[in-house]
Amino acid sequence: MSQPEPTGAQLPGVEYLAEIRDQPAAIRRLLEHRSEFAAVAEAASRHGAGVIRMVGHGSSDNAASFGVYAFGLLPGLTAMRDSISLLVYYGAHLDLSGSVVVGLSQSGRTPDVLEYVQRARRGGAFTIAVTNEPDSDLARAAEAVLPLSAGAELAVAATKTYSNQVAALALLAGCLAGRCDELAGLLEDVAGQIEEHLPEFERLASSFAVPFASIARMFVIGRGPEFATAREIALKLLETCQIAAEPLTATDLAHGPVAALDPLFPVWSIASEDETLEAVVDATARARAAGATVVASGTAARSLGDAQYVVPIPKPGIPLLAPLLSVVPGQLFAGAVARAKGLDPDRPRGLSKVTLAR
Amino acid sequence: MSQPEPTGAQLPGVEYLAEIRDQPAAIRRLLEHRSEFAAVAEAASRHGAGVIRMVGHGSSDNAASFGVYAFGLLPGLTAMRDSISLLVYYGAHLDLSGSVVVGLSQSGRTPDVLEYVQRARRGGAFTIAVTNEPDSDLARAAEAVLPLSAGAELAVAATKTYSNQVAALALLAGCLAGRCDELAGLLEDVAGQIEEHLPEFERLASSFAVPFASIARMFVIGRGPEFATAREIALKLLETCQIAAEPLTATDLAHGPVAALDPLFPVWSIASEDETLEAVVDATARARAAGATVVASGTAARSLGDAQYVVPIPKPGIPLLAPLLSVVPGQLFAGAVARAKGLDPDRPRGLSKVTLAR
Repeated sequence: MSQPEPTGAQLPGVEYLAEIRDQPAAIRRLLEHRSEFAAVAEAASRHGAGVIRMVGHGSSDNAASFGVYAFGLLPGLTAMRDSISLLVYYGAHLDLSGSVVVGLSQSGRTPDVLEYVQRARRGGAFTIAVTNEPDSDLARAAEAVLPLSAGAELAVAATKTYSNQVAALALLAGCLAGRCDELAGLLEDVAGQIEEHLPEFERLASSFAVPFASIARMFVIGRGPEFATAREIALKLLETCQIAAEPLTATDLAHGPVAALDPLFPVWSIASEDETLEAVVDATARARAAGATVVASGTAARSLGDAQYVVPIPKPGIPLLAPLLSVVPGQLFAGAVARAKGLDPDRPRGLSKVTLAR
Repeated sequence: MSQPEPTGAQLPGVEYLAEIRDQPAAIRRLLEHRSEFAAVAEAASRHGAGVIRMVGHGSSDNAASFGVYAFGLLPGLTAMRDSISLLVYYGAHLDLSGSVVVGLSQSGRTPDVLEYVQRARRGGAFTIAVTNEPDSDLARAAEAVLPLSAGAELAVAATKTYSNQVAALALLAGCLAGRCDELAGLLEDVAGQIEEHLPEFERLASSFAVPFASIARMFVIGRGPEFATAREIALKLLETCQIAAEPLTATDLAHGPVAALDPLFPVWSIASEDETLEAVVDATARARAAGATVVASGTAARSLGDAQYVVPIPKPGIPLLAPLLSVVPGQLFAGAVARAKGLDPDRPRGLSKVTLAR
């Protein structure tokens, strides 16, 4: 391996595991900034938030998938994961004046996210940087900055910066709905729930990691806010375990991909105790009928019939916040499978912490 | 196999291949309806098209990925692949009055697309059904109907209905930009180019199918309008060849997934002669550096250095229309790999032509 020496880490995945365990504290650090969220929401409302355009890559884009639901369900605003290339590469002439832009980048250095925010600001959008580096180029480029305050993240595979992005979008959406304090309280409770259930999540996620060490491909399915979790767990499996894990909405599974399943092609299924439950139950039954091994997770994990593995998630105060809890066993499972394969989740092959790819 | 007997098909994949070959004629049938496209665009403009919300599953959702660029680049409108579940399952209170909705469903029967369109229409959106079945529930639910006119599609894996969805979105976008005749002419030319290059595409796509019969996983990368092609080729590989093929934007490959690549994890890379070329060249170089076998395709296929296989695509009149050409070798390749594996692309395991999954 030509990667740099671990700093302060003795065992593979030590930093990755420590950062997963730091998530409750990281969420609490974020919540100390709630007055900044309230002020930014106020400024965004004054500007007019016709459409919220979120931009990011990798985990940041996964968090944006959550944002679609947070902004849609709390303030009732249309939010989208916008095309970066349309504005940055193709120079499309879009009217951005009624838009709020949320640029998501842990490092604040992702080149095309930075350029998107610069162009959108010139185009009249109200621009917000959500970043773990409040001194970064992205923070300077945007009109407003919301610090993630996740603390230093050393493992290449993001964990606490992802969950703090999710928490930040939930809090911003709550503030836009005039429910800043309520959401802050709910997020505080979620931090407590993660803390309380971490030992159980660690035990469960490790208990079936070894049989997955020989698995080459997986689907991770979820719907609604949990599609973000499906995307993020799939990305952790790809980058830390070299498993070709693809996220799918429960309904899209039936539109083609189900044909590829077999017993060596497992499905991690996230079922929420919410209005999408029936769709996820149906999709999981199709996966089982195709012979796939199923891991059932989410707040309604026990509704997923004859799954081989069950990882239940406690219910947060509102179903929207379930992704903050349900991503944790997936992060831990990816770390456990990586260790079972002799891989180091702190430093996956071919990746660096700050991705400057265009 | 418990699937119904093929009707009129003797060999596995005969219908699938015939429908790929019918694509030039299908596009021409669509173009006969150009006056309807002009009228619908006129009505949509009168209504006000603040945001264009596209909804669909599977191939229809892939076509919507193209729509983001067609509407963004031609009339300069913001178009999004909207969340279906936000409106249909969660009943989010969004202001849809300034929106145009495009419901995409080959069969016109996809349940939640139908319900989305019904709710959006009640919410004040101008609703358009784009469907191959103008007598379907979806067509009746929408204010306006644009017939795909692809002709009967018998193979379960969609081909000509996908390309006609792409062509329909391009034509609608052109009409919204006041360039109806110009786009119709350009699409007519593309139909001729597909026709002319089909024999070469068939030869090329078959020439390297056999080595891929033992491949379990692939990435398909593209950016801008060609991200739709990446998604559609990946879906064909999943449903007809049981290959875990995941579509990625060129830039997202570097944000994690590149860590999973090895020589048995090939990458199909679509490079366009447009503003995204540098990003795709860079991502492909990263894939090669990780040891992946690379198939280079797209109008700039020859820019992709030392790819093992090269499938060049002729340039259409405007770069935006390249996806209509570049999807064809992918469709053919999936069919050839399926045959090499003894699978029938007309009737993949576990799928039916009309997907009624919620």
